[in-house]
Amino acid sequence: MFNLHKSGSMSPLGERARAYFEQLQRAICAGLESFENEKYFTEDRWERADGRHPDQSGGGGLTRVLEGGKVFEKAGVLTSTVFGGLPESLALKMNVSPTEFYATGISLIVHPLSPMVPTVHANFRYFEQANGDCWFGGGTDLTPYYPYEEDIRHFHSVLKKACDANGSEYYQRFKKWCDEYFFIKHREEARGVGGLFFDYLRGDTEQYFDFVRSVGEALLDAYLPIVRKRMNEPWGERERAWQALRRGRYVEFNLVYDRGTTFGLETRGRIESILVSLPPKVEWHYNFHPAPNSREAKLVELLKLPRNWVE
Amino acid sequence: MFNLHKSGSMSPLGERARAYFEQLQRAICAGLESFENEKYFTEDRWERADGRHPDQSGGGGLTRVLEGGKVFEKAGVLTSTVFGGLPESLALKMNVSPTEFYATGISLIVHPLSPMVPTVHANFRYFEQANGDCWFGGGTDLTPYYPYEEDIRHFHSVLKKACDANGSEYYQRFKKWCDEYFFIKHREEARGVGGLFFDYLRGDTEQYFDFVRSVGEALLDAYLPIVRKRMNEPWGERERAWQALRRGRYVEFNLVYDRGTTFGLETRGRIESILVSLPPKVEWHYNFHPAPNSREAKLVELLKLPRNWVE
Repeated sequence: MFNLHKSGSMSPLGERARAYFEQLQRAICAGLESFENEKYFTEDRWERADGRHPDQSGGGGLTRVLEGGKVFEKAGVLTSTVFGGLPESLALKMNVSPTEFYATGISLIVHPLSPMVPTVHANFRYFEQANGDCWFGGGTDLTPYYPYEEDIRHFHSVLKKACDANGSEYYQRFKKWCDEYFFIKHREEARGVGGLFFDYLRGDTEQYFDFVRSVGEALLDAYLPIVRKRMNEPWGERERAWQALRRGRYVEFNLVYDRGTTFGLETRGRIESILVSLPPKVEWHYNFHPAPNSREAKLVELLKLPRNWVE
Repeated sequence: MFNLHKSGSMSPLGERARAYFEQLQRAICAGLESFENEKYFTEDRWERADGRHPDQSGGGGLTRVLEGGKVFEKAGVLTSTVFGGLPESLALKMNVSPTEFYATGISLIVHPLSPMVPTVHANFRYFEQANGDCWFGGGTDLTPYYPYEEDIRHFHSVLKKACDANGSEYYQRFKKWCDEYFFIKHREEARGVGGLFFDYLRGDTEQYFDFVRSVGEALLDAYLPIVRKRMNEPWGERERAWQALRRGRYVEFNLVYDRGTTFGLETRGRIESILVSLPPKVEWHYNFHPAPNSREAKLVELLKLPRNWVE
């Protein structure tokens, strides 16, 4: 195979995945910035040392963050390309061989200011090892604070279309996986209304790369129309307090269950990039329950059981 | 030994520990309420089903919470007494026998409104099993937002005095354990300025009960004089924002590392009681660093390495 360790080089597919993720980062940042007039994404380039050979480069990333916007209170769009020795404890945890690895990926999180606009998260990654094993993983999911069902249907139908172009069974399979993954066990409720989740897509990686690109291209179409539609809905202190409380659930999921986050913390990745996913302003109140039949109660109801959002 | 399962009965020491913890809960709530005029602790009694025999009682607890006070933004003082079958997975995790168990304890968390007043946490518990194994555990620690060193010295010297009355080596031993335990690995900093931490104090349990009572009696003396001294210090938006950001670290520790919290979430304890420890209003900003030589930077400096606070 290729020698990953000495050069940080990778397979041609790995190079193409990296180039695609970096282009997608620019496109997403531009799409989000088009809603703001005075706030822009900052750029932080960072480098890491190899996990086993700390004197050698282990790659790095580009973290782009927009904070304090009039539409987006906090948005992060991150790419990274890392390589080198995979510590044995991690290989064990990931259930892969502890050989040299190469990984490239993009992740994004958008926490809007308005409680009427949902939070969105997405992540795509390509991973390969010196022994030839390689796979794609990723997904995207929506977390509303108020239950606008037509928005949820829109999000899912755009994703379904992107899936259908690549495989007729993809949407149902990855929608189900998403519902199972983004579940807050201790609250017995979902983090949000789902989307897609997939991992270890091995085999025909070229085809999976097409699929990942289809979902990547669909992201802005799935999300931005919802932003445009809801950003001018009125809201006040009550809605903002509810958003803060629900954001607490997001924190609970990310710090307790999310694999990417806990993996990042354990491997001492770049902490500020890993935790950029946490919402800007969050509240925890003791034993708060929304009034019966309120819009807030209806949101909670939506999160109790997975639903089908498109035929 | 005693039959824990059928009756929920326990050893005489267990009964005395329970009675003591319940009395301490009343004393602490009264001490904290004396700072408020219009806010009082609410009371929630809850019951649990046995972990192995869900049709039988597994004990319960009394959760007392004060929110929105002029001095205390959120304070929780909780007791619980639980018993029954110990699931094997938990016994394995705790490194104890999977026989019937009985546990009684108290925990408290105080999140003051003023950023000039530190957060305090304490917890004491007694655990016994049908095979005769029994032990005490617990501790208390202080988390300031601004570095008033005389306050930290006061807190530690009151704890040292309480320790010294029981064993000359206790303070150093449990202070060190505390520094090690309340460490946020991914941030490479301590949660706060420490205090005491101890667990699995087996053997002369009568003597350890005396020790726990000494620390329990010392709690209000260790904390309330600091509250009284700092509650009228001026503060503004800057200090409040810093407190919100530091509270984020508290959340990170509790959800990622704290054994009591993660144990509680895994065993599906009463979630609202477990997570009452989370601060009321919290913020996460990307890559914030306090200005060099600011009071905020000095606080961070204090958390980098454990210090000796008393001779």
